[in-house]
Amino acid sequence: MTGKFISFEGPDGAGKTSVLHAILDRLTPMLGEQLVITREPGGRDNQVAEAIRDLVLSPAYPAMDPWTEAMLYAAARRQHVVETIRPALADDKVIISDRYLDSSIAYQGGGRELGAERVADLNQYATNGLQPQATIYLDLAPEVGLARIQATRQDEINRLDVEALAFHQRVSAAYHDLIAADPDRFWVIDASQPLEQVVADAWDAMQHILTLPTEA
Amino acid sequence: MTGKFISFEGPDGAGKTSVLHAILDRLTPMLGEQLVITREPGGRDNQVAEAIRDLVLSPAYPAMDPWTEAMLYAAARRQHVVETIRPALADDKVIISDRYLDSSIAYQGGGRELGAERVADLNQYATNGLQPQATIYLDLAPEVGLARIQATRQDEINRLDVEALAFHQRVSAAYHDLIAADPDRFWVIDASQPLEQVVADAWDAMQHILTLPTEA
Repeated sequence: MTGKFISFEGPDGAGKTSVLHAILDRLTPMLGEQLVITREPGGRDNQVAEAIRDLVLSPAYPAMDPWTEAMLYAAARRQHVVETIRPALADDKVIISDRYLDSSIAYQGGGRELGAERVADLNQYATNGLQPQATIYLDLAPEVGLARIQATRQDEINRLDVEALAFHQRVSAAYHDLIAADPDRFWVIDASQPLEQVVADAWDAMQHILTLPTEA
Repeated sequence: MTGKFISFEGPDGAGKTSVLHAILDRLTPMLGEQLVITREPGGRDNQVAEAIRDLVLSPAYPAMDPWTEAMLYAAARRQHVVETIRPALADDKVIISDRYLDSSIAYQGGGRELGAERVADLNQYATNGLQPQATIYLDLAPEVGLARIQATRQDEINRLDVEALAFHQRVSAAYHDLIAADPDRFWVIDASQPLEQVVADAWDAMQHILTLPTEA
């Protein structure tokens, strides 16, 4: 594989969607056809993964067991890796994914208390060990993230958003464990800054990432 | 738990649906409210598991990766165990399920060649080790099963049915490995006999199963 696989991660409320849009607005004219923009759960043009996304994010299933949820995320990820990410890497693309494996470890392993190691183990069946070459992490205190969600996203609340502060604190702690275990992969951005500064820092990180050697 | 959990298994074409209907027609007046009839993938009144069933059995996704499929079956099974089977066992019910874990090991582990051990390992996250107290297995040579499918089920063919004979042979071999490893759980019925005799043999097995001590 000769391409680059880069993920964006962060807790809800960190502004990930806005920052990612701003970064992609700059990258698109630079990279053109070489840029592949995708997301999890789901994936660009990935019908199976998007169908699983619709199911796992639906508010229609409040009784969904946390392990059911974790396995659905892993199933969607498997299809994303096999059908979208690996072919794009083999084709020398730059793949930017809004969330990847770290999100499952943080949200299901930490937030839902399934255990980071057990969720990582389950996901071996999804990823076969494929990790992003770099991950841009938008760092924000869980109290701040939750307050931002509650202030601005009432109209598009999803099932995960309705969890309590303790959930957000566990998500944040799990993310920070991942960062501590793999500091070379993570580019941590202070998301408590004004959006323009967060975008500027993320763009700076992205420029460094794009100059890294490609995957072996 | 004080109830009984009994699964029906077998290759496609073995007449499992017909035999199960005949058995349930006799059991229903005997057991009344104590009888819980369910199935996999999915599960009676189990909205999450049935939604996953619709997805995994849909012919709309020919590109579904075998591990994606295995994880979807496992996700549905988790919800089935947590929401349907364990509560019914705790409530002293007799639960009869059309397929359970053995089907994943036979079809995904054997048929799809993912490996019986790896599929069993994945499914630990779904079942936490819960196995049926007894499994009625309708045994049929894969050549005969496939010929029956091709002769009679053209109008309701699903994605798994379109696989070749080699697939059916791997499914059968994996089932027989399971039977050899756990002979006390399996009640093997010769499904090459006329339907009335298969039903009679299955009913005989069921009467023995119902006299077994309940789960510890």
